[in-house]
Amino acid sequence: MSADETANDEYDEPLFFQVMQYAARTDRDVVGMVSGNPDWEPPAALRDGLREYADADPPQLQYPASEGLRYLREEIAARRNVDASRIVVTNGTGEANYLAMARAMERDAGREFLLTDPVYPYYPGKATMLGGTATKVPVLESGAPDVAAMREAASPETAAVLVNTPNNPTGAVYDRETVESLLEIAEENDALLLVDEVYDHFDFSGEFESALTLDSDRVVVTTGFSKSMAITGFRVGYAVFPNHLVEAAKTRHMLVNVATTRPGQVAVHRALEETPTEYYEETRGMLRERIASFTDALDAAGATYTTPKGAFYVMARFEDFPGTIANVERLIDEAGVAGMPGEAFGEAYDDWIRFALVTPRADEAAERLADYFA
Amino acid sequence: MSADETANDEYDEPLFFQVMQYAARTDRDVVGMVSGNPDWEPPAALRDGLREYADADPPQLQYPASEGLRYLREEIAARRNVDASRIVVTNGTGEANYLAMARAMERDAGREFLLTDPVYPYYPGKATMLGGTATKVPVLESGAPDVAAMREAASPETAAVLVNTPNNPTGAVYDRETVESLLEIAEENDALLLVDEVYDHFDFSGEFESALTLDSDRVVVTTGFSKSMAITGFRVGYAVFPNHLVEAAKTRHMLVNVATTRPGQVAVHRALEETPTEYYEETRGMLRERIASFTDALDAAGATYTTPKGAFYVMARFEDFPGTIANVERLIDEAGVAGMPGEAFGEAYDDWIRFALVTPRADEAAERLADYFA
Repeated sequence: MSADETANDEYDEPLFFQVMQYAARTDRDVVGMVSGNPDWEPPAALRDGLREYADADPPQLQYPASEGLRYLREEIAARRNVDASRIVVTNGTGEANYLAMARAMERDAGREFLLTDPVYPYYPGKATMLGGTATKVPVLESGAPDVAAMREAASPETAAVLVNTPNNPTGAVYDRETVESLLEIAEENDALLLVDEVYDHFDFSGEFESALTLDSDRVVVTTGFSKSMAITGFRVGYAVFPNHLVEAAKTRHMLVNVATTRPGQVAVHRALEETPTEYYEETRGMLRERIASFTDALDAAGATYTTPKGAFYVMARFEDFPGTIANVERLIDEAGVAGMPGEAFGEAYDDWIRFALVTPRADEAAERLADYFA
Repeated sequence: MSADETANDEYDEPLFFQVMQYAARTDRDVVGMVSGNPDWEPPAALRDGLREYADADPPQLQYPASEGLRYLREEIAARRNVDASRIVVTNGTGEANYLAMARAMERDAGREFLLTDPVYPYYPGKATMLGGTATKVPVLESGAPDVAAMREAASPETAAVLVNTPNNPTGAVYDRETVESLLEIAEENDALLLVDEVYDHFDFSGEFESALTLDSDRVVVTTGFSKSMAITGFRVGYAVFPNHLVEAAKTRHMLVNVATTRPGQVAVHRALEETPTEYYEETRGMLRERIASFTDALDAAGATYTTPKGAFYVMARFEDFPGTIANVERLIDEAGVAGMPGEAFGEAYDDWIRFALVTPRADEAAERLADYFA
């Protein structure tokens, strides 16, 4: 057994903020492609919802139900075809993942999280904070999980298999067969399958299918509105738990946060109700164009790169320029482009640098990279 | 050693929501005095801040700094006369308390939280969730902590002394000597002193002094804007840690919540900057009047009661009518008044019922109680 949660104070802070601060401190013009902060407009109805809320009567400014506003949970439930009682509205997908991971540990059926490498760095951070361990299994060349290697790595110590699809940072979209296999691995080891689907609105492949459709009492799906509505600062997400796991998750949510911010919930609900599908289609269209022109420029720079099937990140590899934090800082200073070091995501992609396509200047960034590496 | 955090899934959900739901389900008219939800107006500048934010450019809608918006932390720091680096802006005072309690456990210097009885029920809930234990020491007749008994109860197993002043539910405001004594107890047992000051703007005694003035590296002060600005639903609070404890608290905050909601932070900052002290004075004046007329009516009802020196709760005791949840539900059904059962706060006040003065109908409620108990 590993040490308990609160005995671990050595968990690492993810590097995102550190890199962004470095980029902000430099004097030169830098194209920022570090964090997954959308630069596009949120749905108009979201702004309307917030504006109207600013004039709400005092009772509307007070605690929402701890598990989330009833009408928001019902709207989500109808869209996701699940019972509203299974939903906890959280302080972003970040808290949803925390609740799901804590729930996996509380089952007392293992303390290990089985992750992919590369991995979203918050997952191992949360695992360690919760007193668990993180085992990272390198993905296949395609970016898809190596199911055979994950099966090999799994054991009764495995508390949960935790994956993210569409994937940050690889851009892979896991096909249904893969996710079913991951569920089997969870079943074989009395573990949960946690699937973070926060990029669910950014599937360019047409292959994405939510793990909710597996209809399994071992699956927890987490997601949020940060990316799909371009509001990472609002902090509204949710988790869908199986019935037998949801009550304790709601209690933890209450004890940690009391409730999720109400202005955000109200605005998101309004946007869910009124935003036409064209909004999401247009965003995807814009991102497709950015991906195409950024990767064209990377071709010109002689770089190797991933073409995302989902999410909005491109991983690029430049000859003799591994994805260390030192090199990323060099790129900021010398090329005027800020990315995330591949080493922040594990070892499998530590030669790579991740670029978030959240700027209209992605082309310019690619040209700068081409010049720099010429 | 007690079990670790995630092995505990038996922690209790505080009763607030349960009682409010019961009151909401009944057909008859009920005066709601359960939860500490202010019914008065927030500062006008808060609404202005939120309205303006609804039109902010996309970058302003994205992740704030994890530890809180710099300008909000600086504004708080200036007002509290502490270094901004010691401040973490949290998802309400609830998260601030969670971070402080987790930090106390992480010091590996005991796993017990020394609390008062009566106690704000989230504290023992959080203690158990974190894998700690809760020891409750009955307060004095005045509502002040029984310092001698707390000293007696403290031991090297004590991770923190955790108190709340101005106090919910007793209405006591702890004098400086008392808080200094509690700090001594913490020092004698290598523990922290955690002081939840969320009612700091509701001191009717003139005796309240923040524990920040103790200037001790063992003191963590938590508070928020939920009560002072009448916005419990916004979820904006903060903790002030000593320098040597703040970094790990920031990391936990990042790993659990990523950041605190930005619309709320922006609105609170605007309100801090522009709200005249008269706003807070007027609120206190209104509450003084409510306290006076509610307790007058309780006199008429022959009840024993507490007259709050701070916060906005009155505890009342009716003959042969202990503060059980069953009796509180009877009062809802038969008298049309909803309070909180004293037993929800521990054993010391389990004969009492707490009434939150968050309704203009407090007088009417008192008359209903007088009729019911006549």
